[in-house]
Amino acid sequence: MTTVRFEKGLETLRKLNPGAAQTLMDNLREVLPELATMTIEFGFGEIMSRPGLDLRTRELLNIAMLGVIGNAPSQLEMHVRGALNVGATKTEVTEVVLQIVAYAGFPAAYNTLQAVHRVFKSDGDPQGSFWKS
Amino acid sequence: MTTVRFEKGLETLRKLNPGAAQTLMDNLREVLPELATMTIEFGFGEIMSRPGLDLRTRELLNIAMLGVIGNAPSQLEMHVRGALNVGATKTEVTEVVLQIVAYAGFPAAYNTLQAVHRVFKSDGDPQGSFWKS
Amino acid sequence: MTTVRFEKGLETLRKLNPGAAQTLMDNLREVLPELATMTIEFGFGEIMSRPGLDLRTRELLNIAMLGVIGNAPSQLEMHVRGALNVGATKTEVTEVVLQIVAYAGFPAAYNTLQAVHRVFKSDGDPQGSFWKS
Amino acid sequence: MTTVRFEKGLETLRKLNPGAAQTLMDNLREVLPELATMTIEFGFGEIMSRPGLDLRTRELLNIAMLGVIGNAPSQLEMHVRGALNVGATKTEVTEVVLQIVAYAGFPAAYNTLQAVHRVFKSDGDPQGSFWKS
Amino acid sequence: MTTVRFEKGLETLRKLNPGAAQTLMDNLREVLPELATMTIEFGFGEIMSRPGLDLRTRELLNIAMLGVIGNAPSQLEMHVRGALNVGATKTEVTEVVLQIVAYAGFPAAYNTLQAVHRVFKSDGDPQGSFWKS
Amino acid sequence: MTTVRFEKGLETLRKLNPGAAQTLMDNLREVLPELATMTIEFGFGEIMSRPGLDLRTRELLNIAMLGVIGNAPSQLEMHVRGALNVGATKTEVTEVVLQIVAYAGFPAAYNTLQAVHRVFKSDGDPQGSFWKS
Repeated sequence: MTTVRFEKGLETLRKLNPGAAQTLMDNLREVLPELATMTIEFGFGEIMSRPGLDLRTRELLNIAMLGVIGNAPSQLEMHVRGALNVGATKTEVTEVVLQIVAYAGFPAAYNTLQAVHRVFKSDGDPQGSFWKS
Repeated sequence: MTTVRFEKGLETLRKLNPGAAQTLMDNLREVLPELATMTIEFGFGEIMSRPGLDLRTRELLNIAMLGVIGNAPSQLEMHVRGALNVGATKTEVTEVVLQIVAYAGFPAAYNTLQAVHRVFKSDGDPQGSFWKS
Repeated sequence: MTTVRFEKGLETLRKLNPGAAQTLMDNLREVLPELATMTIEFGFGEIMSRPGLDLRTRELLNIAMLGVIGNAPSQLEMHVRGALNVGATKTEVTEVVLQIVAYAGFPAAYNTLQAVHRVFKSDGDPQGSFWKS
Repeated sequence: MTTVRFEKGLETLRKLNPGAAQTLMDNLREVLPELATMTIEFGFGEIMSRPGLDLRTRELLNIAMLGVIGNAPSQLEMHVRGALNVGATKTEVTEVVLQIVAYAGFPAAYNTLQAVHRVFKSDGDPQGSFWKS
Repeated sequence: MTTVRFEKGLETLRKLNPGAAQTLMDNLREVLPELATMTIEFGFGEIMSRPGLDLRTRELLNIAMLGVIGNAPSQLEMHVRGALNVGATKTEVTEVVLQIVAYAGFPAAYNTLQAVHRVFKSDGDPQGSFWKS
Repeated sequence: MTTVRFEKGLETLRKLNPGAAQTLMDNLREVLPELATMTIEFGFGEIMSRPGLDLRTRELLNIAMLGVIGNAPSQLEMHVRGALNVGATKTEVTEVVLQIVAYAGFPAAYNTLQAVHRVFKSDGDPQGSFWKS
């Protein structure tokens, strides 16, 4: 039995990365399925699905935040792919990278660009995941 | 003598906060005027003035990045005021706060909201600065 | 109408700080009530209420995490008070401070100790809040 | 000649990871043996050996702190293995991961879970080290 | 009874800030005297007293690290005062601030400059402390 | 056409790592050449080329800052190599690593030492880059 929040999260996550939810649930089944559920229900169902800000802007914000935090390259790739999937242009994504320079310095920007570059090169393949399995 | 980059930075910064550039230059004159120049030339002239992403989205990105980094409440206020000044709605700003929960946790979101709240309460007064003098 | 998760979160939060939930909802009513709801439902109802780890250990973990992140002194105070309220000793709390030295350095430990000290001095008064209003 | 602090640190570290001290000293002999000595004397001899908090709780705190800092996956693995070696259950470890979600966001939790998962899969083999040599 | 490490730490700390050690021990006597001892013995006696790098360079490094971490303005002030006390020039200190821009962004640099400015204005008074009591 | 700032940045960067600027421009040509330009013009031309602090001290500061931030091992290697290339000794570099222990904890120091060790072992080969391509 799934909750309304779960269904909503699933729907939003699918727009960003069609196969990501299934991969996530498969990967976490043995170790911590609750984290998959919380991610989909709360992260995508309650937060990323909210009105008030379009999904394209939300994904640019995620790239900026993950770029500044700097510890999650694989999730960063996922949101770069997600941003492109919901209508962001490659230019918008690289503008975020440049803006990181001013607020978190060059190293954070280079790290972000590495993840961006891996997605751009992959040319449409799904890319990135919640973790690197 | 000022550079083209300086003029461009001044123009962009004025859209966000009309008096901020002058206050910044006054405050830093004695201690480190180069930092004021670099902020205007590089931060606002070379980065925030670029095409490819509108100023409203850029300010939302700044709120997200400063919210996640969490160490610059006064600059955060400045960019919340800036976001509103270039057309962001209060709802868009608070949506950024909620999105911070998922990517950097509740404490970062509460810190960000404090700065947001101070600006919302001030009702149009200039708010925030590069530093708390 | 409240959810089961909300009720459960309220119950857990009350054990830590009897008045915190009401203060939180009052403070956020105008600016962002959804954040109060998410905090109680998700933060306290879905996570802090889980079995598998006792509330006293969970509060020590929160002190360690907030101490390392270092940007939320008021929430840190709240969890120091919370730890004492659910049975942690003052010694256990100061041991967490010393352990922070090894993993995040002296400055983070001193910052944490400041918040700890404010609570210890207050001698039973409720202390700290989700934000400093 | 070794100090009392060194002997005490060695004893505590051995409870967590029987071979870690020797590997550490061997790896650092050429490059910076003082760091190995400081780690054992100060980190394990003066801090982790203190009374006032049991070693199992201390290891859970280390997992939380390293999870939040997010930059030391190999040391994180070492403390996950260490936590299990001094009596923490797998459930207690994964509860720490879920609690990280609330205080530092989903990305930090996923990063922590990756390290946790590598240890759980290794089924008793020593796992992790002070650095990845 | 004090250790050799303690005496050495005291001597080094006195060069930086003549009264800081006494204030530290007084402030921590009730709450956590072990942290004062560890700071003097380990932080100043074992690390800051080492040969191989002069005290002036070490204080510039501390300003850079605390500036980047960004959560300890009072300790930052202490090391700015300390740097000047062991022969660093005001220019060297402000150069560190500018270099922070490139590696951690403008907000971290402005935060650092605030602490620097407070010390420069105080004109020789002891300034800063391990914590703001 | 290049600017004076670009030429100055190129000259400074060449002292640190003779081939780094060319590699950087080649790697970024397709994806984000502006970041290469900004790095050379602003990072190296306007900041790292300033008088007031010698290049050797500046590189030690960079090692400390990148060590504390902890998310850019490849750039860290580049600056370790750079430090040695402009006259820092291996001892000065490892002293920075030990000082990181006191201000950001053991994990950050171990991460830094890993990058240092890779450079020391490489015995003069160019090492590290703005990103790991």
